[in-house]
Amino acid sequence: LKQIVECVPNFSEGRRQDVIDEIVAAMSRVLGVHMLDTQSDLDHNRSVVTIIGSPQAVVESAFQGIAKAAELIDMNHQRGGHPRMGATDVVPFVPVRGVTMEDCVVLARQLGERVGSELEIPVFLYESAATRPERRNLADVRRGEYEGLKEEITVDPDRAPDFGPAAMGSAGATAIGARPPLVAFNVYLNTPDVTPAQAIARAVRHSSGGLRFVKALGLLVEGQAQVSMNLTDFQRTPIHRVLEMIRVEAARYGLSVTRSEVVGLVPSRALFDAAGFYLQLDGFSLDQILENRLSNDE
Amino acid sequence: LKQIVECVPNFSEGRRQDVIDEIVAAMSRVLGVHMLDTQSDLDHNRSVVTIIGSPQAVVESAFQGIAKAAELIDMNHQRGGHPRMGATDVVPFVPVRGVTMEDCVVLARQLGERVGSELEIPVFLYESAATRPERRNLADVRRGEYEGLKEEITVDPDRAPDFGPAAMGSAGATAIGARPPLVAFNVYLNTPDVTPAQAIARAVRHSSGGLRFVKALGLLVEGQAQVSMNLTDFQRTPIHRVLEMIRVEAARYGLSVTRSEVVGLVPSRALFDAAGFYLQLDGFSLDQILENRLSNDE
Repeated sequence: LKQIVECVPNFSEGRRQDVIDEIVAAMSRVLGVHMLDTQSDLDHNRSVVTIIGSPQAVVESAFQGIAKAAELIDMNHQRGGHPRMGATDVVPFVPVRGVTMEDCVVLARQLGERVGSELEIPVFLYESAATRPERRNLADVRRGEYEGLKEEITVDPDRAPDFGPAAMGSAGATAIGARPPLVAFNVYLNTPDVTPAQAIARAVRHSSGGLRFVKALGLLVEGQAQVSMNLTDFQRTPIHRVLEMIRVEAARYGLSVTRSEVVGLVPSRALFDAAGFYLQLDGFSLDQILENRLSNDE
Repeated sequence: LKQIVECVPNFSEGRRQDVIDEIVAAMSRVLGVHMLDTQSDLDHNRSVVTIIGSPQAVVESAFQGIAKAAELIDMNHQRGGHPRMGATDVVPFVPVRGVTMEDCVVLARQLGERVGSELEIPVFLYESAATRPERRNLADVRRGEYEGLKEEITVDPDRAPDFGPAAMGSAGATAIGARPPLVAFNVYLNTPDVTPAQAIARAVRHSSGGLRFVKALGLLVEGQAQVSMNLTDFQRTPIHRVLEMIRVEAARYGLSVTRSEVVGLVPSRALFDAAGFYLQLDGFSLDQILENRLSNDE
């Protein structure tokens, strides 16, 4: 079984195109890595690079990106709308095929160790790779951002990094971790009124009492109410359960779902699970997918 | 984009294991071919071999199988429950990835030409590869079976082969064609009575007025009523439409669907389509499947 890992490093540069290009070039020179996407945000002053490939190629590519970003981004002068603590701010590993979350935790530690020792950048392990419960949440790890952490890291043992020195240079600190794939899923309602979409978002999202792995907002998109979501663990909170909950909540306002959309990439598994649910498929194995037979052999 | 074709040769030998083994061995010696499955039926005296791989590897593997079967199976002495006209009875090519039905028609012709000239076996092109409307249906091509066709092929111009001699030796004749992937899909009802399953099978199947690409039977399986189906073109008659039609027909008897099953392999596309329907996914492209990004590059 061929192993495939995804990695989504976030760099604290979204304005200087030459800097972004150099980072991406350094990452793409690694053999066996596929560059899926680079998205830069001017307001956030941040770029998100998505790569995919064999575990070792992806680790090497992420390392090259971190090294280049440390060279080209000085956090003492970096400003932007997005919270950040380092030139490479956060590096999540995501299992795609033939790898477990535990495998991705091992990769996060491996990369963290190298970044700490070779680049002398403090590294904090987060989410599934976290070494302490209070470090699972990225927002907690990044509290105080670059400026605040720069002070605290030298004096507060609770903020000592997992790898690298307890001192920050111009490259700041980096959070490295492992998490499930994100699915960006939006559901549209047959109304131009945003109010029910906001009420439904509150009903389904974790933060206000809803489903464990759902983040949601009610929006108005081109005059149509939309429940805009990030599903942060589609295996434990599957798409179909979210959609059917929205359907029931919408019916309470006399509304119905007109359509949905997946933004960006989605693991095939998420759609197979939805098909399995609605078709009431019993005893189905992913080995029965014709294309999977091929990749298992290769 | 890597091209993948499936091929499912049916050989008229399901009893002599050494003969089956020799045919499978000849086919699997071809580089780049993956043997997915071999199923032999004693009553039918027939074996169905499923292979997958690059178009040229699959054509070569099918040719080697046909050559070996011609060597080891004498149709003058072959008897079995399944209609047949040749040692290799029928060879369908099935598009899987990066190939169209037209590509498979070209492969069918290419193989047919070689089988006709090099092995001197009469070849009839059928289904999408048929050269005449009356040869689309395999049952029509095979009418009279080995014994009947042996007479007619020499005298009736309507039964002249597309390739090879208008005369049959001990290997008989072979039908070679192209068709969409089959999906074997069964739906269970909450009753031990087979009658409503039979009525529902009649409602959904093409032959008695139902959906164009559905073959269906009502059965009793371990005491539970089952609508047992072959979906012969899941892109034009999709799984969800069949299931929802069964649901409505079942409700008319006060029954409901307890579960369904896919037997054997299913193209990922069939399940993506079902997910898309039930999730009401708009503007979704197969390029958004994470794993597809990888295979497109390779």
